[in-house]
Amino acid sequence: MRALILAAGMGSRFKSEKAKVLHKLMNKPMLWYVYQTVKELNVKDIAVVVGHQAEEVKKVFEGEENLRFFHQKNPKGGTADAVLSAIDFWRDYQGYLLVINGDNPLVKAQTIKNMQRYIHLVEEYEKQKVSALILSSFFPDPTGYGRVVKDDKGNVIKIVEEKDASFEEKQIREINGGVYLFYCPHLLEVIFSVSPSPASGELYLTEAINLMSQRGYTVRSFMAEDQTEVMGVNNRWELAIAENVIRLRILERLAKEGNTIHQPETVWIEPSVLLEGDVEIEPGVAIIGNSRLGKGVKVGKGSIVENSILEEGVVVEPYSIIRDSTVKKGAIIGPFAHLRNQTVIGEGSHIGNFVEVKASQIGSKVNAKHLAYIGDAFIGDRSNIGAGVVFANYDGKRKYQSHVGENVFIGSNSLIIAPIKLGSYAYIAGGSVINKDVEEGDLAVARAKMKIIKGKGKEKLT
Amino acid sequence: MRALILAAGMGSRFKSEKAKVLHKLMNKPMLWYVYQTVKELNVKDIAVVVGHQAEEVKKVFEGEENLRFFHQKNPKGGTADAVLSAIDFWRDYQGYLLVINGDNPLVKAQTIKNMQRYIHLVEEYEKQKVSALILSSFFPDPTGYGRVVKDDKGNVIKIVEEKDASFEEKQIREINGGVYLFYCPHLLEVIFSVSPSPASGELYLTEAINLMSQRGYTVRSFMAEDQTEVMGVNNRWELAIAENVIRLRILERLAKEGNTIHQPETVWIEPSVLLEGDVEIEPGVAIIGNSRLGKGVKVGKGSIVENSILEEGVVVEPYSIIRDSTVKKGAIIGPFAHLRNQTVIGEGSHIGNFVEVKASQIGSKVNAKHLAYIGDAFIGDRSNIGAGVVFANYDGKRKYQSHVGENVFIGSNSLIIAPIKLGSYAYIAGGSVINKDVEEGDLAVARAKMKIIKGKGKEKLT
Amino acid sequence: MRALILAAGMGSRFKSEKAKVLHKLMNKPMLWYVYQTVKELNVKDIAVVVGHQAEEVKKVFEGEENLRFFHQKNPKGGTADAVLSAIDFWRDYQGYLLVINGDNPLVKAQTIKNMQRYIHLVEEYEKQKVSALILSSFFPDPTGYGRVVKDDKGNVIKIVEEKDASFEEKQIREINGGVYLFYCPHLLEVIFSVSPSPASGELYLTEAINLMSQRGYTVRSFMAEDQTEVMGVNNRWELAIAENVIRLRILERLAKEGNTIHQPETVWIEPSVLLEGDVEIEPGVAIIGNSRLGKGVKVGKGSIVENSILEEGVVVEPYSIIRDSTVKKGAIIGPFAHLRNQTVIGEGSHIGNFVEVKASQIGSKVNAKHLAYIGDAFIGDRSNIGAGVVFANYDGKRKYQSHVGENVFIGSNSLIIAPIKLGSYAYIAGGSVINKDVEEGDLAVARAKMKIIKGKGKEKLT
Repeated sequence: MRALILAAGMGSRFKSEKAKVLHKLMNKPMLWYVYQTVKELNVKDIAVVVGHQAEEVKKVFEGEENLRFFHQKNPKGGTADAVLSAIDFWRDYQGYLLVINGDNPLVKAQTIKNMQRYIHLVEEYEKQKVSALILSSFFPDPTGYGRVVKDDKGNVIKIVEEKDASFEEKQIREINGGVYLFYCPHLLEVIFSVSPSPASGELYLTEAINLMSQRGYTVRSFMAEDQTEVMGVNNRWELAIAENVIRLRILERLAKEGNTIHQPETVWIEPSVLLEGDVEIEPGVAIIGNSRLGKGVKVGKGSIVENSILEEGVVVEPYSIIRDSTVKKGAIIGPFAHLRNQTVIGEGSHIGNFVEVKASQIGSKVNAKHLAYIGDAFIGDRSNIGAGVVFANYDGKRKYQSHVGENVFIGSNSLIIAPIKLGSYAYIAGGSVINKDVEEGDLAVARAKMKIIKGKGKEKLT
Repeated sequence: MRALILAAGMGSRFKSEKAKVLHKLMNKPMLWYVYQTVKELNVKDIAVVVGHQAEEVKKVFEGEENLRFFHQKNPKGGTADAVLSAIDFWRDYQGYLLVINGDNPLVKAQTIKNMQRYIHLVEEYEKQKVSALILSSFFPDPTGYGRVVKDDKGNVIKIVEEKDASFEEKQIREINGGVYLFYCPHLLEVIFSVSPSPASGELYLTEAINLMSQRGYTVRSFMAEDQTEVMGVNNRWELAIAENVIRLRILERLAKEGNTIHQPETVWIEPSVLLEGDVEIEPGVAIIGNSRLGKGVKVGKGSIVENSILEEGVVVEPYSIIRDSTVKKGAIIGPFAHLRNQTVIGEGSHIGNFVEVKASQIGSKVNAKHLAYIGDAFIGDRSNIGAGVVFANYDGKRKYQSHVGENVFIGSNSLIIAPIKLGSYAYIAGGSVINKDVEEGDLAVARAKMKIIKGKGKEKLT
Repeated sequence: MRALILAAGMGSRFKSEKAKVLHKLMNKPMLWYVYQTVKELNVKDIAVVVGHQAEEVKKVFEGEENLRFFHQKNPKGGTADAVLSAIDFWRDYQGYLLVINGDNPLVKAQTIKNMQRYIHLVEEYEKQKVSALILSSFFPDPTGYGRVVKDDKGNVIKIVEEKDASFEEKQIREINGGVYLFYCPHLLEVIFSVSPSPASGELYLTEAINLMSQRGYTVRSFMAEDQTEVMGVNNRWELAIAENVIRLRILERLAKEGNTIHQPETVWIEPSVLLEGDVEIEPGVAIIGNSRLGKGVKVGKGSIVENSILEEGVVVEPYSIIRDSTVKKGAIIGPFAHLRNQTVIGEGSHIGNFVEVKASQIGSKVNAKHLAYIGDAFIGDRSNIGAGVVFANYDGKRKYQSHVGENVFIGSNSLIIAPIKLGSYAYIAGGSVINKDVEEGDLAVARAKMKIIKGKGKEKLT
C-alpha cells in the first residue's frame, strides 16, 4: 500500500490566514495526526499534496524521511485534481493507494487496517478485485454530508453530494467519510475522465468512484465502528469537537494504563506526555508538551505542567504552574507556586504559595513556603527562605546570580541583592537588605532602629 | 403578530425568594432571553404579564420602549388567567398572538418564524385558518410533560397533562412546549369558557386549546427541530442545564466566526462579549459582561476577563483576573496577575505573577513581573517595578496617589508611600522606604547599614 | 433480608497495588458507596467477604457495628466461592440474601427496594417463590457483559458470559448487573454443585443461577431504570466515569434543594458537604470533606473549600483555597487567598489577593487585602494589615505567636517578628521591622533615613 495525504486546501470556513490543516488539536497540527495514523500502518511510500501555504505545511513533516511532496497548482482544483497532481507517485503502482484528507485527524490506523483486510477477504472469498473501498459511517442526521448510494447487493453505485441528492438519496444515512483505498490501475483508468463539477468547477474524487462503478468495477464501502472517526473538521467549532475526541482518547488510554484521572472533561493531557503509573490527576489539570510524571505523582486541581519532569512521589498542590523545570522525588510544589526557565527543585523541598522560582537550582529539603521570588539562584540543601524574600537579580541593566550555601536561614522580607554569596549556616535577620557576601556561620542584619512615638498611633487613626 | 410574555409565576420548585424568571442564565435573567427572542422577531407590540415580584420583573425591561405591562392579580391563577389579565392587549386584534412563557429561554426566534410560515402555508394551500399553533417536541421520555393528542389527520384534539392522561395518552411522546400562536378572534371566543382545573383550581391555556378543537377550529402542532428549545426550567438543576445550552450556543457561534475555543465544556463566555477574530480561548476561561477582545488575543487557562478591553495581540497568561480595565496592544498579563478598578496597561507592558494593579495608569513597555501591589498610581513608559514593591496608597484614613515618570527603576522590596512623585530616570535602591519625592535622574536609597556577627548564624541554627 | 458484600477481589485491570474496592470516588472508597446503599435499605444483618488486602478493606467499615467479616481464602476463587466463604452467615436463614459486589457503587437503594417489591408481587399474584432475582439492564452495546438468557415466559434460563455465548446469545442486549437477591434455602441447595469454570477455574455465582433454573426454580431478572446503575468498575477509565455519575447525582440533588450551580461538568462537591440553600457555586469550584456553607454563600470560580465552614453571606472570590478553617458572616475571601490550619476569619473581614493566613484568629472587619503572610497570629477587630506585611513566626528553630489588638494599623511591607504584642490603636509605619512590643495607641517606626544621590539614577540606567 502507498499513502497519499491531501493537504493543499485552504479551509475558508476557518476564517483564518492559516491553512486549515495547520490548525492545532492538543497543540499539534491537525495534519500531524493524519500522518501519525499513516505511519502506524507501516506504509513505506508516503506522499503529501501541498498547495495553500505549502512551505508551512511541509514544516509539519520536518525531520521525517522518505516523504515525497507534490504541489497542486490550483488549491481549489478539487480532490481529484489533488490526486492527479501526485500521479507520478502512483501511476505505475500495481497495488492500493490510500487517499486520506489532512482534515481527517480522527481516523484510526486500526480502521484502515480493517479496510485492507476487507479487500483481502473479498478477493479471497468473492474472487473479486475491489477497485475502490470507501470509509463510510452511519449518521442519524446526515445533513451536509455526501451520501453513499448502493445497489441491492451492497455495491456502491455512486457518492452523491447533499446539494445534488434527490429526495430519496437524502434519506440515506450512510455518509462518505473521505478516506479511500483505490486499486491504482483502475484509478488510472478513470481519473482523466473526471469532469468538473457544474457548481464549483472542481474535480471531485467521488466522481472517479462513480466512473469506476459505471464501468462495472467493484466499489464497496466500509463502515467505521466509531462515528467520530469520519468526522470532518470544517470550521473551528468542529475543531473544538475533534480536539475533545482526541483528548478523551488520550485520557482513556492513560487511565487504562493505571493512572487515576478525575473529571476527564476538565483535564488536558497532550499526546507527548508520559505518566509512569499511579499518577493522580485532579480536575482542571493541564499536562503539556514533553512532560514526564513519575510513579505516584499527584497533580492538584488546575495546575499546569509544561515540558517538565516530576519525579516519583512529587505532589503538586492546586493552581501551580511548572514550566521547563524538574522537580525531584517527594518535593511539594504549591499551591499557587510558579516554577520556570530550567528550574530544578531538589528532593523533599517545599515551594509554597505565591512563590516564583526562575532559572534556579534548589537543593534538597529546602523550604520557600510563602510569597517569595527566587531568580537566577543556587540554594543549598536544607536552607530556609522566609516569606517575602526577594532575590534581586536585575539592576536595571544586567542580571546576576546568587549562591546560597547549605542550612542557610534567610529571614522574612529580606532582600538578597545579586551577585552575592551566602555561606552555609549563614543567618540573615528578617527585613535586611543584603548586598555583601556573608561567610559561613555568620549572622547578617541590616535594620533601622525601632522608634516609638507615644500616643501618635491613636492620633493618626482617630 | 403581537407577543405576550407570561412572567407572573413564582416557581416554588426553585426554593428561592426570587421569582423564577429572574434567576439568571449566563448573568442575564431567564426572562431577558425570552425578550431577546421576541425582539428578534421584530414584533412591535409586546406585553408582559407580571404578578409575583412585579417591580423586580419590570426592571428586566428597563430602558425598553413600547412595552405594556399587565398585572395578574392571582399569580396562581394559571396561564389562561394570565392571558385574560392582558385581554386589553389582544381583544380587538385581528391577527396572531404569540404567547410565550418567561421560563422558556431556549426557544429560538427562527423557530417562531417557522411557526408563522407554517400558518401562512396552511392558509395558502389548505385554505384553512389555523386557530392555534402549538410548539411541540418529540421526547423519548415524555414523563412529566403535557402530551399533544392528535387525530389521524394530524389535527390537535387536546393537550393532556401527565396526571390526567390515560394509559394510551401517556405513550404519546409529542409534548407541549408551552409556546403558542393564537388567532385572537378565536381565542376570544373560548377564553371565557375555560373552567378551573379540578386538581389545582388554575385556568390552563391548554384548556382554551381543547375548547377550540371541540368547536371544530383547526389546531396544529409544530415540532421544534432542536429538542432543547422547548425545555422548561422548573428547578435549579434544569436552570443549570439550560445555562449550558445557552453557553454552548454562544461558543458555537464564536467558534464559527473564526475564534479558537479549547474544551468548550469548561469555557464561559457571556452573550454580551465581543471577540474580534482569531482569539484563542484556553480551557476554564471566563469572559464576562461587556468585554471586547481584539484580533489574535490569547486568554490562558482559567483566566477571568470582566467588563474589560483587551486590544489586539494581548496575551493573558493562566489564572489572571482582569476586571473593569483596559490592556493595550501586545501587553502580557500574568500568570496570576490581577488588574482591577479602571486600570489601564500600556502597549507591550508585562504584568507578571502575584502582581495586583488597582486603579492605575501603566505606560507602555513597563515591567512589573513579580509580587507587587500598584494602587492609585501613574507609571510612565519603560519603567521597571521590582519584585515585592508596594505602593502604599492608604495611611489608615485616606487614599493617595503616586506619580512615577518614565524610565524609572524601582528596586525590589521598596515601599513607595503616596502621595509621591518620582521623576523620570529616578532610581530607587532595593529595600528602600520612599516617602519623599525624587527628582529626575536622582538615585534614592534608604537602607540600614549591614552588620555581621561572626559565628552567630550557626549558633542560632544548631 | 440479609446483605452480603463481596469485597475480596484484586481488580488487576486497575494496575494498582491497592485493592480495587479501595479506589476512591469523590474521596470515598468505592466500597463505601455500596455500604451506604445497603445501610439505606435498613438491613440489620450485613456481612462482607474480604480477601485481598483484607485489613485495609475492613478499615472502610471502621466504627460501624453489627457487621460480620468473612475471609475468602482464595481471592481468585470466584464469586460463588466468595458466597460460600460466608455460608455461616446465610445457611440457616429462611429469607432473601442480597449479594452485591464491592465494585457496584452506582446501584441505588431504591432499585433494590423495587427488587424486593417485585419478589413480593410475584409471590402474591403469581403464587411463585422467586429463587433468584437478578438486577439487569438493557445495553445497546452489550459487548463484554454477561447476557441474561430467558425463555418465552420471561424466566431466566441462564446467564452466559461473553466468551461462552453463542452467536444468538451475543445478540441479547439484557446484561447481568451483578446484584442478586437469592432465596437462601434454594441457594443452599445448589451452591455446592457449582463447578469451576473450564476457562478460569473460578466458581461463578451465575453458575448457581443456571443450576437453579435447571432444577425448575423460578429465576427472574429485574431491569434497572437507569443504565448507569449496573455499570461495573473494572479499570480506571470506568472509575472516572463512575465518579462522574456520582458527582452529577450529588449536584442534581443540591440544585433541586435550592442552590445554584454553574457548569456542573466542572464542579466537584463531595457527598459529605452541606449547602444550606441559595448557595451559588461558580464553575470549577471544589467543595471537599466535611464542609458546611451557609445560606447565600457564593463561591467564586475555581475556589477550593475543604473541611471548612463558611457562614451566611460569605463571598469567596475566584481561585481561593480555604482548608480546615471557618469564615464568619459576610466576610470576603480572595481572589487568590489561602486560609489554612484552623484559621478563623471574623465577620465582615476581607482577606484579599495573594494573602495567606495560617492558624490565625482574625477578628471582625479586619482588612488584609494584598500580598501578606499572617501565621500563628491573633488579630483584633477593625485592624488593617498592609500589602507585603509578613508575620515572621519562625526563627529557624521554633514557631512563635503574635497578638495584635483592635484598630491596629500595620503599614505595608512591615515585618512583625513573633513573639510580639501590638496594643490597640498601635500604628506601625510602613517598611518597619518590629521586634519589640508596641503599646496601645503608640506609633512605631523602624526606617533608615532616605538619601538622595543627585544624577546617579540616570547614570545607572543609561
